[in-house]
Amino acid sequence: MRRLMSGAYIYMPLGLRSLNKAIGIVREEMNRAGANEILMPALQPAELWEKTGRLAALGETMMQLDDRQGRRVVLGPTHEEVVTDLVSREIHSYRQLPINLYQIQTKFRDEIRPRFGVLRTREFIMKDAYSFDVDAEGLNKSYQAMYDTYCRIFDRCGLKYIIVEAESGAMGGDVSAEFMVPCTAGEDLLVLCPACGYAANMERAQPAPLPESDEPEKPTEIVPTPGAHTIEQVSKFLDVDIKKLVKTIIYMADNNPVAAMVRGDHEVNEMKLSRAVGEPVKLATAEIIENVTGAPVGFAGPLKLPIGLHTRIVVDQAVLSVKNFVTGANKADTHVLNVNLYDIEKYEVADIRFAVAGDKCPKCGVEIEIKNGIEIGHVFKLGTKYSKKLGATFLDESGSEHPALMGCYGIGINRIIASAIEMSYDKDGIIWPKNIAPYHVELIPLNMDMPEITGLADKIYAELADAGIEVLMDDRDESPGSKFKDADLVGLPVRVVVGKKGLDKGGVEIKLRTEAKPQLIPPEKVLEEVRKKLNTD
Amino acid sequence: MRRLMSGAYIYMPLGLRSLNKAIGIVREEMNRAGANEILMPALQPAELWEKTGRLAALGETMMQLDDRQGRRVVLGPTHEEVVTDLVSREIHSYRQLPINLYQIQTKFRDEIRPRFGVLRTREFIMKDAYSFDVDAEGLNKSYQAMYDTYCRIFDRCGLKYIIVEAESGAMGGDVSAEFMVPCTAGEDLLVLCPACGYAANMERAQPAPLPESDEPEKPTEIVPTPGAHTIEQVSKFLDVDIKKLVKTIIYMADNNPVAAMVRGDHEVNEMKLSRAVGEPVKLATAEIIENVTGAPVGFAGPLKLPIGLHTRIVVDQAVLSVKNFVTGANKADTHVLNVNLYDIEKYEVADIRFAVAGDKCPKCGVEIEIKNGIEIGHVFKLGTKYSKKLGATFLDESGSEHPALMGCYGIGINRIIASAIEMSYDKDGIIWPKNIAPYHVELIPLNMDMPEITGLADKIYAELADAGIEVLMDDRDESPGSKFKDADLVGLPVRVVVGKKGLDKGGVEIKLRTEAKPQLIPPEKVLEEVRKKLNTD
Repeated sequence: MRRLMSGAYIYMPLGLRSLNKAIGIVREEMNRAGANEILMPALQPAELWEKTGRLAALGETMMQLDDRQGRRVVLGPTHEEVVTDLVSREIHSYRQLPINLYQIQTKFRDEIRPRFGVLRTREFIMKDAYSFDVDAEGLNKSYQAMYDTYCRIFDRCGLKYIIVEAESGAMGGDVSAEFMVPCTAGEDLLVLCPACGYAANMERAQPAPLPESDEPEKPTEIVPTPGAHTIEQVSKFLDVDIKKLVKTIIYMADNNPVAAMVRGDHEVNEMKLSRAVGEPVKLATAEIIENVTGAPVGFAGPLKLPIGLHTRIVVDQAVLSVKNFVTGANKADTHVLNVNLYDIEKYEVADIRFAVAGDKCPKCGVEIEIKNGIEIGHVFKLGTKYSKKLGATFLDESGSEHPALMGCYGIGINRIIASAIEMSYDKDGIIWPKNIAPYHVELIPLNMDMPEITGLADKIYAELADAGIEVLMDDRDESPGSKFKDADLVGLPVRVVVGKKGLDKGGVEIKLRTEAKPQLIPPEKVLEEVRKKLNTD
Repeated sequence: MRRLMSGAYIYMPLGLRSLNKAIGIVREEMNRAGANEILMPALQPAELWEKTGRLAALGETMMQLDDRQGRRVVLGPTHEEVVTDLVSREIHSYRQLPINLYQIQTKFRDEIRPRFGVLRTREFIMKDAYSFDVDAEGLNKSYQAMYDTYCRIFDRCGLKYIIVEAESGAMGGDVSAEFMVPCTAGEDLLVLCPACGYAANMERAQPAPLPESDEPEKPTEIVPTPGAHTIEQVSKFLDVDIKKLVKTIIYMADNNPVAAMVRGDHEVNEMKLSRAVGEPVKLATAEIIENVTGAPVGFAGPLKLPIGLHTRIVVDQAVLSVKNFVTGANKADTHVLNVNLYDIEKYEVADIRFAVAGDKCPKCGVEIEIKNGIEIGHVFKLGTKYSKKLGATFLDESGSEHPALMGCYGIGINRIIASAIEMSYDKDGIIWPKNIAPYHVELIPLNMDMPEITGLADKIYAELADAGIEVLMDDRDESPGSKFKDADLVGLPVRVVVGKKGLDKGGVEIKLRTEAKPQLIPPEKVLEEVRKKLNTD
């Protein structure tokens, strides 16, 4: 890979071969599942996106331009709008359903910070599929077929992935599952249970509730805390464990303030808070915070908070694990000691925080692990959200009209390659899974000036190639050490070395990339041994 | 295909299968020629295009946007800049050359008028290759290898193409050849000799010079031509053959006026005029025309034209075929009769017109044909134009630095499909060349309610599929007539029909799309007969 500019990379020959192999596997499995391949343009009329309200929702992530006729054109970040519009024009009867349309196509997203190398780029190849069904049962079948197909695809690509199911139901009751490859370079955080296999994206993970504290309550006490602004400073100043500080953070939900309370060692998960509140929340501005608390930013607390009809206090479940905690006093440089929930006039309790190390699995109670991961695929039940807005309806047997039930299913093809590399390498280079390796075999003739060596190498090359095995021959005039080093770096599954020393001992050397030592075999056995190595990979 | 918006189309499943087959053929042949496949992004930094001056040159054809960091990003209409920049960073020594890098990738061009269906779209798939060589001999070899490869590609795609060579050398002495499929829907015009095979693009074609007239010269005569503005009106008013009228058209070349003279029945070819003048020309504004001629627009003529140091009159060669012709008098509503070249103070003669019907072949003198054609490929020697500007240099054996010699080679993949269809169809639908047909065989069971019919169809389907033959089975519950009609429309090479009537006579029906009548064969002979049909296509 070579970087052309921020978020835009050039695939060099070896990487592209792997990418094309992944594309081949994806296409085969999608076809096997009965999906129909189409190809939709990157250029899309902005009006379609206005109809679904996503032009505004996606905002600057959407690359846009005015064409020479002055029409607004967007570069598709995804294709729900286009495919639903297509189906609205092509599908009219229940007899044409179910249908699953997919494409392997380039997407454009103007990411705020393109990062993690090729993991989050502004231009990438995606396999996106869209299913259309007459009823929920049909959608369930289509969804399950894609779920199973994704397993086959990622298995064939040699990826060690986990499936993070997210059936907890955000607004709209959508169902989705993410396919993740755990690796340190991943930008997603995963909450995993080593015992029962529970797996969730950090955004969704619900750790087991913490046990409530039975410490006796004490009366509140207002104390000055001059110069202590951060949680750490207050903890130190008051000599109180950070777990016994409770942060009060002011959000806005549809113009009404919401005070979210979490322990000092926890962070608010805005997605969970939104779900608890019932509508999207965003952090309040300093001005609003000052109006709501009557104090400068940094001293919000639940007591004497001007709670009107439309103000809510949402307490994170983990706050129940502490008694006599410390909160802000809604007054500059002042905190309150020994606060307890019964001191608060009105509040709700919900799980509104991110999981942290030490949390327990909600299913079996064993301590969870938090790992980084790369999202390589996502399956999603959309329902009628797009089909209603874009008129993708069908007539049923009785002649009445219904919006089709949709599912959408994405695979980041570039991420298959990136995660294969991140998942499998050593200090010397890549260790390619055999099905997406650029070639199967690296063939290295060592003595380029000896015709018997190069002649034998050519013969082996031809024999393997005729058998359908992909061989990369390093016929450069370089030193053995340099060729071995490059072979490890490139990381093809099998290495075959033809050299004078080996031939003097009667053979050529063969080894898997993962094996420390080569094996000496007679030249006429190369094809047989390569086949063995590739099957036992 | 379905239109999404002006110049942007959706490929439906059958069309996309053909497109992917063409891509497969292109990739195989490019690899066979030793070219290396890479993949460059559509998103490109505008600065690269400023370095070569093409940001301004391409103007509105280039789609552009500012990203969220405020940087100017262009959507690549082609990739000379990116690949040359890449090579400038990767290639340093003559030992790394020659190299040929290609990609199969989506291009964006904001065409003034997207038209001809999928022939000129704003988003299209191109195979673009770029060769880099150390010297002219190397470039010639690389160019010839691509030329030969293109022939193999288009032969395999079943296209009847002609190669239009354009070695006449525009500014810069470039050499190029265009691969064209003659068909009425094509937007290019081709000049073809039915006798000797001479073929040229209309832009480049040089018809044989017309014989000079030996009519005795007469003295000039100024005549009023009130109300006659067009060539046709003047011809009618004066009762003079349109061939004996000579138009004088004022151009500007680097701020100097150029008067181009062509016969009334001919049109100026601005590319040829530019070559004759030595720099690009553009039509003069009305203001300039009035200044140069001293008359309103429409009455320019070569006599008494205020010819200064920097003014030139270029007379088309074909004007020599007429004596005593009519020109404008540089005075409103006035023309001059009996003009001859010796009446003009100073002039040059060159071929500056487009060929027309009736012209003769420059090679053998036989009357040319003018046909429409679709450009499917283009090979081009670029020389050092880009490598110099973008620093793609290499060190030779003696350690001195030189810019690499480049060639560029394009194939419009979508156009392969479009031209295959335009080249080969009848009133009932497409007749696909077998190598790019969406499937090889259309299998039609006629009586969907009879298990012995559908069972036999399933058996034939499986037998053909196992043999690697691609079969599309029309198992819809439609009438035989409707299925036959759709089969002709889709146009797969072979049609196999399983029906009760045929089986009663002991067989299934098989025919090529191009055959009028089917042949009755025993069911167990289907595979054998399909193979025969596909080989004799």
